[in-house]
Amino acid sequence: MRIFENLESEVRGYIRSFPTIFETSKGATLTNEQGEEFIDFFAGAGTLNYGHNNPLISEALIKYLQKDGIVHGLDMATTAKKEFLQSFQDTILVPRNLDYKIQFTGPTGTNAVETALKLARLVKGRSNVVSFTNGFHGLTQGSSSVTGNNDYRDESYISRSNVSFMPFDGYFGDMNTMSIFRKFLEDSSSGLDIPAAVIVETIQGEGGINVASKEWLQELESICREYDILLIIDDIQVGNGRTGEFFSFEFAGINPDIITISKSIGGGLPMALVLLKPDLDQWKPGEHTGTFRGNNLAFVAARTAIEQYWQNDDLSNAVKYKEKIIKEELQRIAERFKEELDVEVRGRGLAYGFDIKNDNSIAGELSSYAFNEKLIIETCGSEDQIVKFLPPLIIDEEMLREGLKRFEKAIETLMAEKKEKLSGEF
Amino acid sequence: MRIFENLESEVRGYIRSFPTIFETSKGATLTNEQGEEFIDFFAGAGTLNYGHNNPLISEALIKYLQKDGIVHGLDMATTAKKEFLQSFQDTILVPRNLDYKIQFTGPTGTNAVETALKLARLVKGRSNVVSFTNGFHGLTQGSSSVTGNNDYRDESYISRSNVSFMPFDGYFGDMNTMSIFRKFLEDSSSGLDIPAAVIVETIQGEGGINVASKEWLQELESICREYDILLIIDDIQVGNGRTGEFFSFEFAGINPDIITISKSIGGGLPMALVLLKPDLDQWKPGEHTGTFRGNNLAFVAARTAIEQYWQNDDLSNAVKYKEKIIKEELQRIAERFKEELDVEVRGRGLAYGFDIKNDNSIAGELSSYAFNEKLIIETCGSEDQIVKFLPPLIIDEEMLREGLKRFEKAIETLMAEKKEKLSGEF
Amino acid sequence: MRIFENLESEVRGYIRSFPTIFETSKGATLTNEQGEEFIDFFAGAGTLNYGHNNPLISEALIKYLQKDGIVHGLDMATTAKKEFLQSFQDTILVPRNLDYKIQFTGPTGTNAVETALKLARLVKGRSNVVSFTNGFHGLTQGSSSVTGNNDYRDESYISRSNVSFMPFDGYFGDMNTMSIFRKFLEDSSSGLDIPAAVIVETIQGEGGINVASKEWLQELESICREYDILLIIDDIQVGNGRTGEFFSFEFAGINPDIITISKSIGGGLPMALVLLKPDLDQWKPGEHTGTFRGNNLAFVAARTAIEQYWQNDDLSNAVKYKEKIIKEELQRIAERFKEELDVEVRGRGLAYGFDIKNDNSIAGELSSYAFNEKLIIETCGSEDQIVKFLPPLIIDEEMLREGLKRFEKAIETLMAEKKEKLSGEF
Amino acid sequence: MRIFENLESEVRGYIRSFPTIFETSKGATLTNEQGEEFIDFFAGAGTLNYGHNNPLISEALIKYLQKDGIVHGLDMATTAKKEFLQSFQDTILVPRNLDYKIQFTGPTGTNAVETALKLARLVKGRSNVVSFTNGFHGLTQGSSSVTGNNDYRDESYISRSNVSFMPFDGYFGDMNTMSIFRKFLEDSSSGLDIPAAVIVETIQGEGGINVASKEWLQELESICREYDILLIIDDIQVGNGRTGEFFSFEFAGINPDIITISKSIGGGLPMALVLLKPDLDQWKPGEHTGTFRGNNLAFVAARTAIEQYWQNDDLSNAVKYKEKIIKEELQRIAERFKEELDVEVRGRGLAYGFDIKNDNSIAGELSSYAFNEKLIIETCGSEDQIVKFLPPLIIDEEMLREGLKRFEKAIETLMAEKKEKLSGEF
Repeated sequence: MRIFENLESEVRGYIRSFPTIFETSKGATLTNEQGEEFIDFFAGAGTLNYGHNNPLISEALIKYLQKDGIVHGLDMATTAKKEFLQSFQDTILVPRNLDYKIQFTGPTGTNAVETALKLARLVKGRSNVVSFTNGFHGLTQGSSSVTGNNDYRDESYISRSNVSFMPFDGYFGDMNTMSIFRKFLEDSSSGLDIPAAVIVETIQGEGGINVASKEWLQELESICREYDILLIIDDIQVGNGRTGEFFSFEFAGINPDIITISKSIGGGLPMALVLLKPDLDQWKPGEHTGTFRGNNLAFVAARTAIEQYWQNDDLSNAVKYKEKIIKEELQRIAERFKEELDVEVRGRGLAYGFDIKNDNSIAGELSSYAFNEKLIIETCGSEDQIVKFLPPLIIDEEMLREGLKRFEKAIETLMAEKKEKLSGEF
Repeated sequence: MRIFENLESEVRGYIRSFPTIFETSKGATLTNEQGEEFIDFFAGAGTLNYGHNNPLISEALIKYLQKDGIVHGLDMATTAKKEFLQSFQDTILVPRNLDYKIQFTGPTGTNAVETALKLARLVKGRSNVVSFTNGFHGLTQGSSSVTGNNDYRDESYISRSNVSFMPFDGYFGDMNTMSIFRKFLEDSSSGLDIPAAVIVETIQGEGGINVASKEWLQELESICREYDILLIIDDIQVGNGRTGEFFSFEFAGINPDIITISKSIGGGLPMALVLLKPDLDQWKPGEHTGTFRGNNLAFVAARTAIEQYWQNDDLSNAVKYKEKIIKEELQRIAERFKEELDVEVRGRGLAYGFDIKNDNSIAGELSSYAFNEKLIIETCGSEDQIVKFLPPLIIDEEMLREGLKRFEKAIETLMAEKKEKLSGEF
Repeated sequence: MRIFENLESEVRGYIRSFPTIFETSKGATLTNEQGEEFIDFFAGAGTLNYGHNNPLISEALIKYLQKDGIVHGLDMATTAKKEFLQSFQDTILVPRNLDYKIQFTGPTGTNAVETALKLARLVKGRSNVVSFTNGFHGLTQGSSSVTGNNDYRDESYISRSNVSFMPFDGYFGDMNTMSIFRKFLEDSSSGLDIPAAVIVETIQGEGGINVASKEWLQELESICREYDILLIIDDIQVGNGRTGEFFSFEFAGINPDIITISKSIGGGLPMALVLLKPDLDQWKPGEHTGTFRGNNLAFVAARTAIEQYWQNDDLSNAVKYKEKIIKEELQRIAERFKEELDVEVRGRGLAYGFDIKNDNSIAGELSSYAFNEKLIIETCGSEDQIVKFLPPLIIDEEMLREGLKRFEKAIETLMAEKKEKLSGEF
Repeated sequence: MRIFENLESEVRGYIRSFPTIFETSKGATLTNEQGEEFIDFFAGAGTLNYGHNNPLISEALIKYLQKDGIVHGLDMATTAKKEFLQSFQDTILVPRNLDYKIQFTGPTGTNAVETALKLARLVKGRSNVVSFTNGFHGLTQGSSSVTGNNDYRDESYISRSNVSFMPFDGYFGDMNTMSIFRKFLEDSSSGLDIPAAVIVETIQGEGGINVASKEWLQELESICREYDILLIIDDIQVGNGRTGEFFSFEFAGINPDIITISKSIGGGLPMALVLLKPDLDQWKPGEHTGTFRGNNLAFVAARTAIEQYWQNDDLSNAVKYKEKIIKEELQRIAERFKEELDVEVRGRGLAYGFDIKNDNSIAGELSSYAFNEKLIIETCGSEDQIVKFLPPLIIDEEMLREGLKRFEKAIETLMAEKKEKLSGEF
């Protein structure tokens, strides 16, 4: 690890939580240079829904490289891009009755978010945007301005212009927080200028697995319609099937104006899309660009994944089946440790949070103890107080249960040590 | 092409200049679905310095995929990343006596620029930044704020805070433009607040192949030292050997505080780096992140390229040799058409501009006529008035000359048509 | 009136509500060029607490002019300024146990607000500021950024940086809105950066005579202490005795860090002050200036008023006495018209609102009908839906009752006409 | 003076330069509490063009107060305002063939500037504004953003959005600085967005008595026309006859779109105006307000001054006559001390600078030595390196010469002491 400490910036993060050098990976496992195998419940923060080195994807990439398919294409027309477009249209959009133009952006989520915000402001001619408490949308200047976490908001670089934060669903207990947003909009002296857009995640992944309800999302959509505000769903972390459906908002029956997609769309390779309602497509040619918006290897991977997993309901059904397991097990574990831990289990699809309310530091310790059990699992929330479960969607039942067992073991060990330490103090 | 028109956003750009569907590519050529071969003098806007599908790189990628090497690694430690770090340190930094910490950012140039600006502001505790006329640094909010071209600056979305523009080298003819910057800094009532950093390209690639002189860069560096301003070199387009040396600023003997690298570093795959002086490494862990900052396929490609091309001077020498050819040929062509065209030929390494000063529209027409000759070549400059030559560095002499011949043919044809049209008018 | 229409900008406002040319004034009355006398329940929007041409003040001004006292003094030391400082210290601050440094700013409320915001940011080194829904603090750039009413917030000129709006007391019915502010502060991912300061009125004068309760103000103060936020009370409209006490916040027992004072302080002449806790006095000499911060005529008027009205409790007691009259009468009138109008009467001291909840247009009509009855009275609130009662504090009981009678007459007439019109429609 | 130190904020400035308590004043003199008389070459920073306590003005004010004329009128119609409007139109605008709508703003220069900037942005729908190096336009947020001096630009409170600074006339020696502005406008990639307006002083009063030439102003006007940019002349310090003509730009024959007026317009009382071309009068009623925009005492004073001094050329001629005296004397003094001091004398009308180029600290010392000679004179320029001569326009020749003599005496004394000190060191 010395080489990373010497050469890499102090900004490095996950390497500190999982201090080993990984060499290979497959499906839901990572293997380090010592040959130790870890179960991955983090999945590249939602990038590896189809698993590490999915064999179908790897095979397609190898074939493509072997025949010298275009690798880097800027935004020129290529066969790989054409085929991806067609697949996405036929397999994802048409069956869902969705009509969007597709924009390829620089291949990361934050670039998609920047693009969405820029377009919304351009179309509406208003500069204000509404984001939500605990929202996370990326860390370039525009995206970080709609990201709530003050770990990323230093006085020296934060751009605080033209963004207003409203409370997310559940932010004030049982109160319907949409009533707050509505009042600020209704009252012409509230200080809230009608925004060009709202940007929202249906489940706040970094923010703590906060799940927006169907009703809340529907009310948000209807407020947007009423006040002529564009609705941007940031589906970067919980789209691509994470909730069982391809888009995380399908369950609510809403119809966003703009959707940002990234992470798993490229099957593990960098790729990002913005979907926009055709009437919003008011860009001038070349008005927004980016060198790697034509990452053709990712197009090959993306098309392979779409055609494999989204032409029928198998993956969706599997996600729902595994959700039941994860939910039941986490609730059982929470119940088992209820003396020591005040836990709320919440989530949707294969995005679950194990929110430890009585002590903010435990989640981080659990992540570390889980690593000792050869389980990769991360925390989320403003104080990293929530353990986040994001296994690859394609994980098999056995490994899922094994991972949950390791998590339970981690708690056991930690709780035992705490008890010992406590008794040692007397 | 219908599918692109139907499904893709109007924002698409290069596809309009080069309206054919490319399927495969190799070295300096692209082949379309009809099997027609094009010589590529654009090289992915500087991303393909090592050529399309460089066989060494493709082979390394295939091997890596076959052995299930980690593809997506967030910022965890991986074998591929370790090996890249070691290679970059040993092959690039150490021989040049350079001491930098390496930060992996989201894998596009604009993410590296955003990171550099954020870090500079953080370290200096000042929010102002100086950029230069005709600078291009990307199109996310922070990067676009330091980008001059008003094609990318709409009232609705531009962030104009905390950026001041100064004239680039040569902006006012023979006048030393550094004297303007210096006067604004010296005068405490100039309205220019001492910036945290200046960000500058040594050759403005999008801005028109404007070449900063050694003396200008040295004076810029010494002004930065004098006023405690960080010097950021954006080496995204003209680094990676484009000028013959790995970094484009080496010829000037300057020592930037921060360097942004992207495009060709990943051998055609998305990758970006920020190099920062160790004392600037004041990030908190995880303060700046990005899902794809661990694109391990790119690390494999990058390491392969570095070890192949930068352990001796062969590539550097070849670039210098080919620069002579390109320069002589362009000057000869300019001379040949001097009655019709008022041309300035300028550049450094394998970045050359053919600046047609008497008519802004000709460069665009030439790009189009060149396409008919099966040559891919783009324009640059604020009015797209300059033809830009950016062939892959590994292009062989024969193909380089063939490309230049096709360019000459394009001029011939265009000039002949213009003459004909003109005579037809009388 | 033709001359105003021809020569003055369209921006003129009150002249449209009260379309006559006033020539002289005295106490609570204004007299137009035709010799018609109007009772003034508007009092220069709170500038004429001591009445028009208060004889003591006029006399002092005339004497001062006759002896060639300094009129314009920049911020040099003058006898008039010295005497004002001493009086303000002895008569206002010391008896209230208040310890503030006094800063003279440009002689309008907005200049005081700009100064307060600038100082707060300077001292705390944070740029964010919190303001409240329906707050009004002036219309220069800094002040308008903390003013909620969108009549003053055009996309082209609003500065939306570094200001967050929180709900004022009562904004969500019975809910304690301080709990919303507190939650946003507690949660480090709320998107609300800890502000340098909050700026608040104890009664929102322009915003609709919204009265903050003692408990709400106390909780605000304690939140400010807890999070090291400066508390700025904008006492421009409702200070200077309007509530019965000199400062409007005295009743709550809070201790603001910064207080802005203007309007009536100068006895009708332009004057503004910022009071700042001594430890906040971190200005460099001359860091904030303004040509007319030494309006010595206003100092003479101010000192006269202070010494006349604030050395004993007579004025305070009179205000309380007249408050009872105004409140009872308005409630009686509201009761009388309860079939037609859904009215809430609210206020404190001699700042009362007659809030007509069933029809936003009636308040404006009433102002106009009252004008016909020779009563000057204005509206407030985001939709101008509230009639605002701000008589001079020195009004005598008879004239107060006469004014209220005229107001009642205006309602009678308007209601009768509405009924007639309605019946005419059938 | 103890009372000021104890009670007033540290921000106080001029009181430190002129540490005595002034009690009365008349014409060009100030008298302190000890009865000592000072000649005033500062004139309230340009506020007292008509002298202290001008007898005509004092008399008019006393009469007005005695008859209970309206003192505070918000923006209601009053007799005093009507008469001012008529006088200003008849005496100032019509004879100069100028067609402007008049807007009364809060009664200070900075309020007029804020209003002008807001209106320009509103009308043009562009947020960018160009200001000039060493420009001073006030210290509220909008005005300070166009003010260059970094004494007023702290990182914590400066608003740096939407303002670009260009070099003023003479900023780069003989170079025509308009060519720089023009190039930035012509080049669509310069980073300078076409501004809504430029704001400029014809003589930079605070900035160092930098005098714009006729040609420079004319070129600025023609650039504004060419690029559809509004031309705002800030005539606050050098308007009102300071240059001999009522408006300081008359000599150049230009026709500004917006003019800001304050300081001397109210004859020493707080008052400010914005003049706007009728087609720019796109305000909604009440869109920009301010409590003291109807300071009727100032209207009375203003009308008196206009009718007295601007119905014939006497004052203009007197200014020109006295300019000759001041210029010749200052040049003579400069010549006399040329061994010790490298001085440039420059100015126009009765605004002159004595710019001591070899030592920035001397001007400040001279101001202090002059005070000992009973002469009030201030410094200006970014380093306070220039002594600024701004006597009342109505000063008589004898007192003007006496003041200049005192200034010369101050230099003599200072130079003698310096020589002595120097020789003492050996």
